[in-house]
Amino acid sequence: MIAGTDIDVDGLRSALLEVIAEERRVNAGESIRALHADDSSPHPASVPDLVVFPHTVAEVSAVLALANARGVAVTPFGMGTSTDGHVIPLRRGISLDLTEMDGVVRFRPEDQMITVGPGISRSAVNRRAGEHGLLFPVDPGADASIGGMVATNASGTTTVRYGNMRKQVLALQVVLADGTVVRTGSRALKSSAGYDLGQLFVGSEGTLGVIVEVTLRLYGIPEHTVAARAAFPDLDAACGAARALIGAGVLLSRMELLDAYCVQALNRFKDMTLPELPCLLLEFAGSREAVQADSRFAAEVAAEYGCAELELEADHTARVRLWQARHDLPPALAHLRPGSKLMTTDVCVPISELPAAVAAGRAAVERLKIVAGIVGHVGEGNYHITYAFDPDDPDEQDRAEILEAEVIEHALACGGTCSGEHGIGIGKIRHLATEHADLLPLMRGIKQQLDPNGILNPGKVFTA
Amino acid sequence: MIAGTDIDVDGLRSALLEVIAEERRVNAGESIRALHADDSSPHPASVPDLVVFPHTVAEVSAVLALANARGVAVTPFGMGTSTDGHVIPLRRGISLDLTEMDGVVRFRPEDQMITVGPGISRSAVNRRAGEHGLLFPVDPGADASIGGMVATNASGTTTVRYGNMRKQVLALQVVLADGTVVRTGSRALKSSAGYDLGQLFVGSEGTLGVIVEVTLRLYGIPEHTVAARAAFPDLDAACGAARALIGAGVLLSRMELLDAYCVQALNRFKDMTLPELPCLLLEFAGSREAVQADSRFAAEVAAEYGCAELELEADHTARVRLWQARHDLPPALAHLRPGSKLMTTDVCVPISELPAAVAAGRAAVERLKIVAGIVGHVGEGNYHITYAFDPDDPDEQDRAEILEAEVIEHALACGGTCSGEHGIGIGKIRHLATEHADLLPLMRGIKQQLDPNGILNPGKVFTA
Repeated sequence: MIAGTDIDVDGLRSALLEVIAEERRVNAGESIRALHADDSSPHPASVPDLVVFPHTVAEVSAVLALANARGVAVTPFGMGTSTDGHVIPLRRGISLDLTEMDGVVRFRPEDQMITVGPGISRSAVNRRAGEHGLLFPVDPGADASIGGMVATNASGTTTVRYGNMRKQVLALQVVLADGTVVRTGSRALKSSAGYDLGQLFVGSEGTLGVIVEVTLRLYGIPEHTVAARAAFPDLDAACGAARALIGAGVLLSRMELLDAYCVQALNRFKDMTLPELPCLLLEFAGSREAVQADSRFAAEVAAEYGCAELELEADHTARVRLWQARHDLPPALAHLRPGSKLMTTDVCVPISELPAAVAAGRAAVERLKIVAGIVGHVGEGNYHITYAFDPDDPDEQDRAEILEAEVIEHALACGGTCSGEHGIGIGKIRHLATEHADLLPLMRGIKQQLDPNGILNPGKVFTA
Repeated sequence: MIAGTDIDVDGLRSALLEVIAEERRVNAGESIRALHADDSSPHPASVPDLVVFPHTVAEVSAVLALANARGVAVTPFGMGTSTDGHVIPLRRGISLDLTEMDGVVRFRPEDQMITVGPGISRSAVNRRAGEHGLLFPVDPGADASIGGMVATNASGTTTVRYGNMRKQVLALQVVLADGTVVRTGSRALKSSAGYDLGQLFVGSEGTLGVIVEVTLRLYGIPEHTVAARAAFPDLDAACGAARALIGAGVLLSRMELLDAYCVQALNRFKDMTLPELPCLLLEFAGSREAVQADSRFAAEVAAEYGCAELELEADHTARVRLWQARHDLPPALAHLRPGSKLMTTDVCVPISELPAAVAAGRAAVERLKIVAGIVGHVGEGNYHITYAFDPDDPDEQDRAEILEAEVIEHALACGGTCSGEHGIGIGKIRHLATEHADLLPLMRGIKQQLDPNGILNPGKVFTA
C-alpha cells in the first residue's frame, strides 16, 4: 500500500475552485468522498481528499495541470464497477469523477460510429445507437462507463463475435498528466499513420492519461437473433462442446458457460427452473437463413457432447431475460452467502486448454473448500471463478488468494494471461510482473515519460 | 535525405562474422547490396554497406547489440514490397534481411493460431493453414513477408470482414535496439494484462524493434464462398452502392472498387472482357444458406444503384482468377505506360465521405492530367489512386506529388487518415506531422526510449 501524501487540501480546493467555480463539483464532503473510496472488489477502501466533477475537457486539463504542479494524485472514477481496485485512490488526492461528462458529442449513424464523453454508460450508448438500428456490442455485465471500459480494455458476452474494447475504439481524446490534450486515431475505420498511441491508452487503467472523449464503432442490429440454452451432463462436456463450436467456425454472437452451481444460484435468486446442469448459453445472429443453418448445426455439435436438446428463444423478451439472468450471476452467488464479499478470477487461456483449465479450477475450488461458481466467455477461453468469501475470516481470505494464484499459475503455464478483461488494478500487480517480466521496464519507461511526477492513478498496474 | 554516416565497414563485417560465421550471410557483395537498396516505391535508392541474413533470434540480438554499440543504422528487410520507401536504408549501414527466418515455429490448428518467423510469406502461411481447413485472411496483394505486414499494419481485400494486421497479431517476439529480446501478448485470444506493447510494435515500421516471431490468428475456411461482379453506370453509383451495402450490414468478406480505367487496364493486360464500367468485386462467405441470402440481398441493393446484374462466381478457379486479376492491377496499370514508375495514394475516409472523396480524387486526376486508376478496399473507406508517371519528367513528378498532397488534404479535412494500410515510410512523413501533430512528441519520446542511439530504420515515420 502506497502511503498517502500530506497535501494542503484547503489550498488545493481553493485553487480548484478557481478552475471550476461550483462548490458541489469540488467536493470535500464526507459522504461523497466515501462513495469514491472503493469499487466492486474486496480491496480495502481509501478515501480521497477531494472529489472533482469536471464538465469539460478544458476543466480536466486545468485540474490535471494543477495537480501535476502540486504532486497531487488523481484517480479517474466512472461507475465504480471495476473489480480489482482500479478506482481506489490509494494515495488519496483527487478522485476525478467523470460521470457528468456523459454526453453524446457526435453521433454519425451513416458512418456507424458515435463520439461520447467518458462518463456515459454503455446502456445509454446502446439506447442512442438503437434509434438508428445500430448497436454497441461490448457487454461486460455491469452498466459500466465507456471511459472505464476503455481504460480496462473491457469485454464480455459478445466478444466472441465483435471483439473487446480495443477493437471498438476508433479515436480518443486524452488529457495527459501535465494537462496537454491529445487526440488519437481518426474517423477512418483503419489507419497505418504512425505509432498507434490510442492502443496504448486502451487498457492503461488511468495511469497514462485521462480519457475525455471516445469514438466507438457501432454495428447494424442483425436482422434475426436467436438465443439458445444447451445443458450438458458435466463441465468437461460443456467445455468440449464450446471448443468444438469455435473450431467448426459457427458464427456465434454469444457463448457463455455456466457450471451447475451457477445455474442453481440463478434458479434460487431469479426463481427460474433451469435444469441444474452445466450449460452453454448461445446466441446466433444474422439473416434468418444463416441463423437457422447455424443453430441447426450447433444442435448437432452439442448433441455429440451429450446435450439432449438446444432450447431456442427467438422472442426478444425471453432473450433479454436470459442475458439478464447471466448478468445477475454475481448477486445470485453473493445471495447464497449473506454478508460475504465476491472475488473473481479472470484468466484467459488458449481454447484447446480450456477444458483442462476449467477442470483444474473446479478441482482447486473443491480442494480449498471454496464456495464458487464457474462462468465464462468461453468463446475466447476466458472464464471466471467467482466466489463469495467472509472478509472477516483470515483463513477463508487466505484460501481465496491461494485459489487465484493457482488459477493464474495454471493459465500462464499453458500460454494464457492473468487477465482476460478485468485488468490488473491492485490485485494482479504481482501476476503481471510474472507474466510480462521482460516488458515491465518498457511499461515503466512509458509511464515515466507520460507521467513523470507519478500523479495518475498511482499504485495500479505496477508498483512505483 | 539523412546523410549516411561513415562507418568502418571492414571492421563491422569482421565483428559480425564473429556472430554469424558464414561469409554469405554477412554480405558486402555489390549485387546483393543493390537488391536491398530500394522497394516498390519511386523513392531514390540508397545502398546499404552490408546485408546480413540472420537465421535465429540470438543472431538478430547479437547483430543489434553490435550495431547499437557502434551507432550503425539497421534497416529490416522482408520481401521489398513496401510502397513508401520503408526498407530503403537511408543511412546505409546494415540491411537486415529476415527472409531466411521463414519457418513455422509452432502451428496450433486446435487453437486456430500459428507462430512463424518474420520472413515467411503470407502465401506460405496460408498454404500451411489450409492443410487444416484454416485460413490467414490478410491479403495486401503483394506476397509480402509476415514481419513486414506487421511492421506496416498491412491490410487488404478481406479487411472488411477480418480486420487488418493489428487485429491478427496475438503475440510477438521483438529484439530491441540494444539486443534485448522481449515477448508481447500470449496465446490467449484477448488480454487486459498491462499496456499492450504488442500494439505499439505493430505499425512501427522497424523503428522501435525488429520483429523476429509472430503469432497470428487463423480462421476456419467458410463452408461456402461466392464472388460477384457488379458493374455500375458511374463511379458515384458504385461508391453509393458500397456505402449502402456496408450500412445494411451485409456480411461481406471482400468488397473492392475498380474504376472504368482499371477495368480497361485489366482487360488489356489479362485479356479479359469485363464491361468497361466502374465495378464492385464482392465476396460472400459462410453457410450456403447465409451466402445465398446475402448475395440475393446485395443484388437488390446494387440494383437500386443501377447495377443490371450481379454476376456470381461460385467456382473456386473462377474466384481465384478474379482476385488474381484484382492483384494484377499495378502491373496492368504500369503496362499501359512502358518505362513509367507507379505511385499510389492510400487515404482512408469515413464511409459516408467515400463517394465525395473518390469524386474529388477523380476530378483532381483529370485537372492535373494524370493517367491514373482508382481502386480500393471501399468497405473500410480506403481507396488508392494509382498512377504511372515518368520519373525523368520533373513536371510530371511535381503533378504526381500535388495529387497526393491534395488527396491527403481532402481526407484529413473529412476526418480520415493519410494512410489506411501502407504506412508512413519516407513519403508521408510530412503528412503524419499534419495528421498527428499533437502526438509527435509522444511518438518521438517512445522512439527515444526504445532506440536512444537512433539505429533502427532511421529517417522513417518522422524526421530525427
